Amino acid sequence: MATSIELKRRGLLFVLSSPSGAGKSTIARMLLAADDGISLSVSATTRPPREGEVSGRDYHFVSDDEFERMVQTGAFLEWAHVFGRRYGTLQSEVTQSIENGCDVLLDIDWQGTQQLKQVDPDIVRVFILPPSMAELERRLRARGTDSEEVIAGRMERAAAEISHWAEYDYVLVNEDAGDCLDKVHSILKAERLKRARRVGLTDFVRSLIG
Amino acid sequence: MATSIELKRRGLLFVLSSPSGAGKSTIARMLLAADDGISLSVSATTRPPREGEVSGRDYHFVSDDEFERMVQTGAFLEWAHVFGRRYGTLQSEVTQSIENGCDVLLDIDWQGTQQLKQVDPDIVRVFILPPSMAELERRLRARGTDSEEVIAGRMERAAAEISHWAEYDYVLVNEDAGDCLDKVHSILKAERLKRARRVGLTDFVRSLIG
Repeated sequence: MATSIELKRRGLLFVLSSPSGAGKSTIARMLLAADDGISLSVSATTRPPREGEVSGRDYHFVSDDEFERMVQTGAFLEWAHVFGRRYGTLQSEVTQSIENGCDVLLDIDWQGTQQLKQVDPDIVRVFILPPSMAELERRLRARGTDSEEVIAGRMERAAAEISHWAEYDYVLVNEDAGDCLDKVHSILKAERLKRARRVGLTDFVRSLIG
Repeated sequence: MATSIELKRRGLLFVLSSPSGAGKSTIARMLLAADDGISLSVSATTRPPREGEVSGRDYHFVSDDEFERMVQTGAFLEWAHVFGRRYGTLQSEVTQSIENGCDVLLDIDWQGTQQLKQVDPDIVRVFILPPSMAELERRLRARGTDSEEVIAGRMERAAAEISHWAEYDYVLVNEDAGDCLDKVHSILKAERLKRARRVGLTDFVRSLIG
């Protein structure tokens, strides 16, 4: 049954981090497909688009100069250097959604997560671990898109990313994408029910007991 | 797919509170049936057994003298007076389960929840609200077991119980039992994934990145 009492609430900033290859992008896509109440924050980046990527959908592709100007004007909630490129979360992508009670999914790394936590202590941080480093490497190779050198770089960066696991609220091991999605979705559904975020509760309880 | 990596974790103390008639007992029963990892803590009480109730399964039925002796010897994690009877959670019912990584469901009121929070700050507190006081009264009448006087007493006590909603971590409105169960189950599944409780993570991450 669809329930009829909808209590006003603040939207969530829902952060997913993981080393490249741990399955974060797959989980993010599945979560967005499974849940109408959350949308992806489209990041800005200075890296060039890959085949098939569309500006405004996958990323906002901008030049180094544009990115720098956006940094200077405070357009970013967080931004980070990754592999010599810059990536950032636009304030404008997030604020409106949150106020409307819509949740925003952020696919960012530990650097961005640390910055965001300082701006908004109420964020929910989820870290996805691979079952093993061998499996991580296997998944990176299975993509078939990266050279040996790039894979070696990604493995090194993966270890560095994983070293920040203890800065997250929830930590999962992704052995199976479906199982991992269920867990991530449970976290999202539970966090929505936290009393402190359900700003409509005070009025609702007043309607019950005056 | 069943996952194979089982990380050691501390069990949860999972508290469900609500006014009588808001559906807490139904939700508790459904949750215990739906999830193998959580079991009910059987409380001790000085009230007499109702028809069909079994000591050791529904409650540990004890005399006033026995209950008092248990209070004096520190057998209770919490205890409270309700309608002139005493109810208490036995330390022995809980400690072993928690250490074994099994979760324990506690069906207790705001008084017990306050006491328990002081003993163990790590408890998870869920409060279930009725959709309206009229619906609560309808549900109490539908039981057909209580006199008008008892119902009036329960309605008064319900308002007092609801006034403590803001002391809980999660607050739900029970419009539909199935939907409410989904929400409670999501909270349980999410809380199990909290980093701070997954004591096996440190060793697991060490196995990944040394």
